[in-house]
Amino acid sequence: MSAVVAVIGSSACSSREQALAEEVGALLAAQGAIVVCGGLDGVMAAVCRGARSRGGFTVGILPGDDRSSANEWVSLPIATGIGQARNIAVVRSSQVVIAIGGAYGTLAEMAFALNSGIPIIGIDTWRMAQNGIGPSPVIEVGSAKEAVDTAVRLASERSNE
Amino acid sequence: MSAVVAVIGSSACSSREQALAEEVGALLAAQGAIVVCGGLDGVMAAVCRGARSRGGFTVGILPGDDRSSANEWVSLPIATGIGQARNIAVVRSSQVVIAIGGAYGTLAEMAFALNSGIPIIGIDTWRMAQNGIGPSPVIEVGSAKEAVDTAVRLASERSNE
Amino acid sequence: MSAVVAVIGSSACSSREQALAEEVGALLAAQGAIVVCGGLDGVMAAVCRGARSRGGFTVGILPGDDRSSANEWVSLPIATGIGQARNIAVVRSSQVVIAIGGAYGTLAEMAFALNSGIPIIGIDTWRMAQNGIGPSPVIEVGSAKEAVDTAVRLASERSNE
Amino acid sequence: MSAVVAVIGSSACSSREQALAEEVGALLAAQGAIVVCGGLDGVMAAVCRGARSRGGFTVGILPGDDRSSANEWVSLPIATGIGQARNIAVVRSSQVVIAIGGAYGTLAEMAFALNSGIPIIGIDTWRMAQNGIGPSPVIEVGSAKEAVDTAVRLASERSNE
Repeated sequence: MSAVVAVIGSSACSSREQALAEEVGALLAAQGAIVVCGGLDGVMAAVCRGARSRGGFTVGILPGDDRSSANEWVSLPIATGIGQARNIAVVRSSQVVIAIGGAYGTLAEMAFALNSGIPIIGIDTWRMAQNGIGPSPVIEVGSAKEAVDTAVRLASERSNE
Repeated sequence: MSAVVAVIGSSACSSREQALAEEVGALLAAQGAIVVCGGLDGVMAAVCRGARSRGGFTVGILPGDDRSSANEWVSLPIATGIGQARNIAVVRSSQVVIAIGGAYGTLAEMAFALNSGIPIIGIDTWRMAQNGIGPSPVIEVGSAKEAVDTAVRLASERSNE
Repeated sequence: MSAVVAVIGSSACSSREQALAEEVGALLAAQGAIVVCGGLDGVMAAVCRGARSRGGFTVGILPGDDRSSANEWVSLPIATGIGQARNIAVVRSSQVVIAIGGAYGTLAEMAFALNSGIPIIGIDTWRMAQNGIGPSPVIEVGSAKEAVDTAVRLASERSNE
Repeated sequence: MSAVVAVIGSSACSSREQALAEEVGALLAAQGAIVVCGGLDGVMAAVCRGARSRGGFTVGILPGDDRSSANEWVSLPIATGIGQARNIAVVRSSQVVIAIGGAYGTLAEMAFALNSGIPIIGIDTWRMAQNGIGPSPVIEVGSAKEAVDTAVRLASERSNE
């Protein structure tokens, strides 16, 4: 069975984040993983574009009612119609989450993943601590390759559980 | 691009409905369509089993938080966590809907499809009329083959729009 | 404890439906019932206006993210952000549902109420039958007064269960 | 118009958090504010109990389908049926949010509030920073009284906008 990996980040992202997302998408596709994302622009479009460039399959879980609002590199749009609540579906439908940069929407997705026991790998993303104390629960990595290798390894461990 | 067809019906269905659903799934897969459903039992499991028997790809849009609650013939589980509201996502994520039998949950899905302008093909399913007057807005057919042929034709027309 | 009654119907309703909704709202408030609705225009605005004219309390369960999208007669806006899926919350948050007229959105709400075992009282609304056979599961009444009397009686029975 | 203030925190909270929540509820009710919460146990039950002890009105926006799952101090249960996605509705339906302690679910609610521009007042709660840099976007206070005074003042400012 294919690994299923969510890639999350802002629709309004920096060019560095966009490049990272595209590289993550390409590497995930090269390893046969299905990419799940929010289906819109920025990090979401970049990761889909990267995955499709290597023949990958991409799922866009959209906030709106309309399949046609997905970016053009989404293989399968899911039109939830539930707005930002679709962020929960993005993480819950995946075995592992990779977070790239991100604003408050990404922070909320990270919190939902943590709440569900789904591991998060982060590149340049939120750091958080309960009451300001203790280690961040995010696995921080420094490159797209490290993120994808870690994600595929964790997805494989989770499939075998 | 593949046609994307939702198949809806009860988790507690009759054996006739189950046989119809399995045949619908097999015929959809034979025509290269992606099957979308609610991912659980009854009609949903039967249509997935039928599709997979012909090498098809099936998407199960689940009410719960847990990917592992999908029936075993779901290729890609989407864990929405939003309960019955996921029925809206099932129809909105598809180009055409085939309804087989069905109880109130199916009636609600049909209403959402009608509300979204997505055509519904029905076999042994609800008939409804505003104020009791006028024709039912459902395309009623008599066999799995007729349902699938109509669905694939309508999906193709909608792709070309 | 107050009876909690949902009133459902279209945002684009006829003037007859609007007058009925306003009368229903006034009669519910006169009996001390809390009115729950979708918070927008048409039947929803009319029932709230009627209820407020008699000092009633009205809850608007909105599809959008913004409390300020409620009609001006909503006492308490609930901003769900989940689009049409909020229709499920409207019926589930109530003891009884009164349906006035209505298009497909109302039909879906009726189906969700039936699916949840919540009684529906209908005025000039959808009639439906599984496979076209058997009685409609809606309690059909002919006037606002009959609708409200029935709703308050059923709500009281449900509170005592 | 009454101020509408969400109070968020864990269902499994410490006794200190519970005492804080109860005091916050009582002080909010004393100032005429409506309390919105998730309707279940822990911080949610404590804040409702505190508010009701002073004659306040409390709204419980529930994850499940069933009004009767609300804690006994909820005046008005809203049964959304959308699981954790109801957390978004809790913050969006309020003018200001007070966070007390909290685990990942609370962190997600805080992120959604920040994403919506709704101010958050925190007592002993999450601290967060984008890429680990910069000030936390939460208004940190040291007591229930300070939290409520700040919340009521901010709600009043938001009403006048």
